Amino acid sequence: MPPADPAIIARRNQLATGLRAIVGKEWVISEESERAPYQCDGITAYMAMPLLVVLPASADEIRSILLFCKKHSVKIVPRGSGTSLSGGALPVEDGILLGTARLCNILEVDPLERIARVQPGVRNITVSEAASPHGLCYMPDPSSQIISTIGGNVAENAGGVHCLKYGVTANHILGLEAVLMNGDVLRLGGNYLGAAEGGLDLIGVLTGSEGLLAVITEITVRLSPRPETARVLSMSFPSVDAACHCVGAIIGSGIIPAGLEFMDRKVLDAVAPLIQETFDANTAALLICELDGSKAEVDALVQTVTAIARKESALEVRASTSDAERERIWRSRKLAFAAIGKICRDYYCTDGTIPRNRLPDVLAKMAVFSEKYGLDYANCFHAGDGNLHPIIMYDSRKPGDLEKAEAFGADVLRTCVDVGGVLSGEHGIGVEKRDLMTHQFTATDLEQQQTLRCAFDPTELLNPGKMFPTPCRCAEFGRMHVHNGQLRFPDVPRF
Amino acid sequence: MPPADPAIIARRNQLATGLRAIVGKEWVISEESERAPYQCDGITAYMAMPLLVVLPASADEIRSILLFCKKHSVKIVPRGSGTSLSGGALPVEDGILLGTARLCNILEVDPLERIARVQPGVRNITVSEAASPHGLCYMPDPSSQIISTIGGNVAENAGGVHCLKYGVTANHILGLEAVLMNGDVLRLGGNYLGAAEGGLDLIGVLTGSEGLLAVITEITVRLSPRPETARVLSMSFPSVDAACHCVGAIIGSGIIPAGLEFMDRKVLDAVAPLIQETFDANTAALLICELDGSKAEVDALVQTVTAIARKESALEVRASTSDAERERIWRSRKLAFAAIGKICRDYYCTDGTIPRNRLPDVLAKMAVFSEKYGLDYANCFHAGDGNLHPIIMYDSRKPGDLEKAEAFGADVLRTCVDVGGVLSGEHGIGVEKRDLMTHQFTATDLEQQQTLRCAFDPTELLNPGKMFPTPCRCAEFGRMHVHNGQLRFPDVPRF
Repeated sequence: MPPADPAIIARRNQLATGLRAIVGKEWVISEESERAPYQCDGITAYMAMPLLVVLPASADEIRSILLFCKKHSVKIVPRGSGTSLSGGALPVEDGILLGTARLCNILEVDPLERIARVQPGVRNITVSEAASPHGLCYMPDPSSQIISTIGGNVAENAGGVHCLKYGVTANHILGLEAVLMNGDVLRLGGNYLGAAEGGLDLIGVLTGSEGLLAVITEITVRLSPRPETARVLSMSFPSVDAACHCVGAIIGSGIIPAGLEFMDRKVLDAVAPLIQETFDANTAALLICELDGSKAEVDALVQTVTAIARKESALEVRASTSDAERERIWRSRKLAFAAIGKICRDYYCTDGTIPRNRLPDVLAKMAVFSEKYGLDYANCFHAGDGNLHPIIMYDSRKPGDLEKAEAFGADVLRTCVDVGGVLSGEHGIGVEKRDLMTHQFTATDLEQQQTLRCAFDPTELLNPGKMFPTPCRCAEFGRMHVHNGQLRFPDVPRF
Repeated sequence: MPPADPAIIARRNQLATGLRAIVGKEWVISEESERAPYQCDGITAYMAMPLLVVLPASADEIRSILLFCKKHSVKIVPRGSGTSLSGGALPVEDGILLGTARLCNILEVDPLERIARVQPGVRNITVSEAASPHGLCYMPDPSSQIISTIGGNVAENAGGVHCLKYGVTANHILGLEAVLMNGDVLRLGGNYLGAAEGGLDLIGVLTGSEGLLAVITEITVRLSPRPETARVLSMSFPSVDAACHCVGAIIGSGIIPAGLEFMDRKVLDAVAPLIQETFDANTAALLICELDGSKAEVDALVQTVTAIARKESALEVRASTSDAERERIWRSRKLAFAAIGKICRDYYCTDGTIPRNRLPDVLAKMAVFSEKYGLDYANCFHAGDGNLHPIIMYDSRKPGDLEKAEAFGADVLRTCVDVGGVLSGEHGIGVEKRDLMTHQFTATDLEQQQTLRCAFDPTELLNPGKMFPTPCRCAEFGRMHVHNGQLRFPDVPRF
């Protein structure tokens, strides 16, 4: 380890003193060993040690932190539970990490208006648990739901298995409170469906903005009735193409399953020992299709999907007849990523979305890339909405292997865009896909996004280096303030 | 009529010449008699004669018009079919009206990806008609759907009867092409669900931005499967309170009807002669509840809702058993506004949304306001989502009557906000509710919205005077441009 730079130590100590005055002594972490767990998020390949970790307990404290950081030009990376899979919560070495772990209270559950008002550090699953006595739940269910926070889910516009039918996070946010870098507190929307109507849609802009615009301090989410019944079909196919075609046939028939997942043979082989099952030797791919609703409706849908699968040359179609059986079928999918972790030293999983009818082409391209880079891969993804999650296997001990895996992933993402798709389904852009943004967006579109960013954070201190391939350099822009038509310069109350 | 001002005539002629060079001679309307039909939109109480009406045929022509108007500092009011109920398409006397009537082509219908790509002047109902052979439809159904355009629907984030279950326009937009005042063309999202992922959500900002940010030149909408069956319940109640309570009970039971509408006695009396039906003398209010889905599900829901209504002291509950009967029950609702038009000289209908549990309080307040202003009123609205449409009756021939009606409406809207509601459900803010924005939004929230506006249209030439109570005065802000960290002044390519 290189010896510590005295200038950095002095800066850290000076900032720690100021921040401790805001949040209390014990909530500013400066010891290197205690900062270490915050060095990365869900993408452990990227690491950076933050100058300090600050854990405020309230929106007021967050506001004071932002004003303090603005005054001292300190960069801020907001973080929930740090499960981002695009490096959205990757620290910067010359900035602080602002954790929301202590803002973890459910403030209100209103079963009549079907809303929950929560602090950003509340975990996703906790909301559904609190809503459960009323027969309600919070629909978006990222795989990280037992650990990821609602604040992080909003920042990344998180998805999940059930988002095919029920929509992503953005479809379930009714109100937000957020603090801007200038200390302004926005209070948007409110406690019922429709509360965000009128005026320009600031909630929409903040959702999925990856911590670049404001720090979210309170969220009102929409609760939904828990579906009466759910059944799951497990359908095996002799080829990847046949499975992909069946996805199109199910959706094309007018059915929107609650979830429709794809697993290839490599995933099945990896997962088989974990679930103590075997898969027929002719199975090249498996689809898992969940259908939910009233019992009568679900039974009818199971019949229809079964008939479609058979027509699309399914080898075997099994439908769950009990909740226990449903859980058992889902287990293979839920253990998939852990199972892959057991058959390779390291893996890199990215996230892109394509039109469903391009699934066979893009999956075929992956085999070509695998050859090109000499790296193995597997596929387990949300087929219903064309949201790919290629799992690229590598060995971090081999020099150059990580870089090859990243290049493989970038090739897949570029292919996604080339067939009319996008760089993200649910993981966000973060640092991982930042440099590919120019492949998806025109210079005009990116410039307009940057201008929009300036309209919220002209200091660019919030989560710098994420989402955009180049800094937007709006600092000078932000140092100005127009008030009643008059141009003003720094030290006016705003900016 | 005052004699024409020679300076205005000269300005009009000069602009007409320039605009004719862009769109062709016949598509710039300068004759006063031909401009007259464009003087107002759905709120006929507000009128203004535009300088010129321009009817471009393509996105390229719209781009040229915007650049021309920017160069000559000409204000622009975009307009679809002019059905806005908040004055969103009200012209300005010193600006042009830009009509999208000639951009009326359906460019693509893709039943597998379930999308339609259309020009902004395509009427709402036309999209569903084009999707119908595939068993699909475009879900948002404002009452104006046979005439209002998709472009206007996007600008106002239009709602409709079925938006309770299926969401408003914002939930159904997958892609947009839009031209900014500086001539930049944004191409956002794409042709499938998920196409808008990644980066800051510009589609979300543009949807509902009431023509203040950009002119929308192409829209990709999401198509949905037409529900297999639908049945309608007509439920009469002895009091307004009982009907309101039943709304809460239905939603509270976990059912989300496809539509849940409220009509008071005054509406029923007005509509009775038109539909040749009579309503029981004890009926104070009627609820119409549509349930859709698979046949088995709908039949079960009809039974559940019937039981709830009876428990909530319904006088009579009738469920449709055929499509003809369903249409007949809906007729009373669909003719309601026309029927009120027959029993009063003029009426003014506004639009606010409240938490459902506050319906009885706010409806009771209306009686107080009616007394205060000496004006009669009636209620017919989307009860399921708490979206009120009070119909205030007045006589435009009586001096001061319109002002009283407006004051009555403003009192209702302020009450909506006071109980935790908002100024709009589906009509937008426009000029109608502009001055009430400070009642719903804090100064901070409004300032942030204005800053956001500047990030799109720093010239403020797009639909000026709409949505915001005061101009944002961002003109100077907009004359600057920061490029690679360097501040530049006018005559740079952007702004």
